[in-house]
Amino acid sequence: MNMTEPDEQKAESNSDRELVIAADLGGTNLRAATIDRQGRIHERTKQRTPKTDKANEIVGAIVAAARECESRSLGEGGGRIRAVSVVVPGTVQVEGGVVMKAPNVPSLDGFRLAAALQSELQWPAVLENDANAAAVGEMWKGAGQGRGSIICLTLGTGVGGGIILDGKLWRGVDGSAGELGHMGVEPFGGVACTCGSRGCLEVYASATAIVRMTREARPRYPNSPLHTSEELTAKSVFESGLAGDELALEVFRRMGIHLGVGLASLINIFNPEMIVIGGGVADGWDLFIPHAREQITERAFPIPARRAEIVRAKCGDDAGLLGAAHIAFT
Amino acid sequence: MNMTEPDEQKAESNSDRELVIAADLGGTNLRAATIDRQGRIHERTKQRTPKTDKANEIVGAIVAAARECESRSLGEGGGRIRAVSVVVPGTVQVEGGVVMKAPNVPSLDGFRLAAALQSELQWPAVLENDANAAAVGEMWKGAGQGRGSIICLTLGTGVGGGIILDGKLWRGVDGSAGELGHMGVEPFGGVACTCGSRGCLEVYASATAIVRMTREARPRYPNSPLHTSEELTAKSVFESGLAGDELALEVFRRMGIHLGVGLASLINIFNPEMIVIGGGVADGWDLFIPHAREQITERAFPIPARRAEIVRAKCGDDAGLLGAAHIAFT
Repeated sequence: MNMTEPDEQKAESNSDRELVIAADLGGTNLRAATIDRQGRIHERTKQRTPKTDKANEIVGAIVAAARECESRSLGEGGGRIRAVSVVVPGTVQVEGGVVMKAPNVPSLDGFRLAAALQSELQWPAVLENDANAAAVGEMWKGAGQGRGSIICLTLGTGVGGGIILDGKLWRGVDGSAGELGHMGVEPFGGVACTCGSRGCLEVYASATAIVRMTREARPRYPNSPLHTSEELTAKSVFESGLAGDELALEVFRRMGIHLGVGLASLINIFNPEMIVIGGGVADGWDLFIPHAREQITERAFPIPARRAEIVRAKCGDDAGLLGAAHIAFT
Repeated sequence: MNMTEPDEQKAESNSDRELVIAADLGGTNLRAATIDRQGRIHERTKQRTPKTDKANEIVGAIVAAARECESRSLGEGGGRIRAVSVVVPGTVQVEGGVVMKAPNVPSLDGFRLAAALQSELQWPAVLENDANAAAVGEMWKGAGQGRGSIICLTLGTGVGGGIILDGKLWRGVDGSAGELGHMGVEPFGGVACTCGSRGCLEVYASATAIVRMTREARPRYPNSPLHTSEELTAKSVFESGLAGDELALEVFRRMGIHLGVGLASLINIFNPEMIVIGGGVADGWDLFIPHAREQITERAFPIPARRAEIVRAKCGDDAGLLGAAHIAFT
């Protein structure tokens, strides 16, 4: 993969009118968009991911979303569809277009999704893991523009990771590399993780973790407004923290310390140019990042610690779609 | 870097008679050898690393060792010296041939070692970090032959690491990547590390750590023969363990558990083909590896855990020299 854009100067060339239909299949929502070679999003759709044990119903939903994007984009007067590029929340065998394991969309386990889409849509179809695609999206159009070697962390319901070294996505031998949410940051005596291990970064830095840690710490903060909030979410904890609530600040402090431990290890392992942090929990940036930086200063080697810029992601929810498009264009 | 050997078939071509003088500058010993394109070691020397605060005395020692190897190899009737290739225990800026930081040979900090050697010897000179070179050596002539993506750990006085992905050494943006001994494996409440952090892999899996953990645990094992052994070393602890001493077994169990925690994180991060473990402490393999494997099974994701072969290094002390030679040949 090459992150440069040789065609950017030839704004009216034929290849510029090409569009990729990118789809981001999440456990909750299926989002799709038509995206051009410059990374402009033309049309987009969003719907619920079908709750089903039949892979074909997932295929049908992606096909319908793709057709809708196609017809709206063609109505707009432009473009030829080059490919459909789908990102899924799981391990992907990229060459074969197979979903190996997708815990939140289990009907796809072992399914040849690319072949099924290609057969229905008659466009080339490519697959990628969602966190890998988000890293590519941030490199192409987000916080990592102009950088060659970045590590991306997506702090959402879980914690995903993507590794780009010298402009190239490192997928691992089976496509399962970059599970940065499952580095051990408190392996001994830490909280049990859904993956079967203990003390993974995910159990301290995900939205789920923010809610759990708030519940755990609540008894120690009897006056916190978070006792009366209707539904506890990472967002409500964050908002409470912005208003100065000590319980919320304590939760984000704990989150930041564990995140910093993980970042320090990543810095010592990779010596990257940049670490990009996205996902919904990154909204709490000001509350957790000072604690994370303190851990990095205390724990990482000085040369790589000075090098690694720690920045917020810029593409928001579109990182995966943009990455999917970039992968299909290159 | 390309790990294949296009010239292996043309055993009598001119380039086959080329030799690299490889030198491995350790904190204690300076070893040098002439090595040919097939990875055969022709001549070798070993001496103490000068204890000095003058970089030029280090240069002088390397030059003398190189000249000795040269004259013995030329006396042997073969070869032309292609380059001198030196590995150092520290961070190296490879393009500039500069030693950035070498804690055990501090006189070299910031020194342009390649230029100094080139000027004295009139051969091209290249530098590399010792653990990186060991990884290349194991890939070329050792346990990683025929593999593309391996992670190497060297368990010696400290713990070093080398990362090879798709046949290419990942050095990091400043040449300081691969500090796998300084991943946090027990970051909270763990043992203080010389790097300034706490709970690094190195404080549980190095020779220094084996000795320290033996001292710490000794009071709980009053009948251990390790109370009376003259000088406690990782080797004496290992031998005691082979003879069934419970203290030694406990130390290697603790070491293996922490190593396994680190390996599980590396497996989730990289999804590598193989993890190669070398260095003197790897002699205790049978005592620690079952505990490490147990942690991997409990903690790493199943797909990458099944993939990653965990094997002992094969090149012994020559891994760094062989890696240095390979780097200079490619």
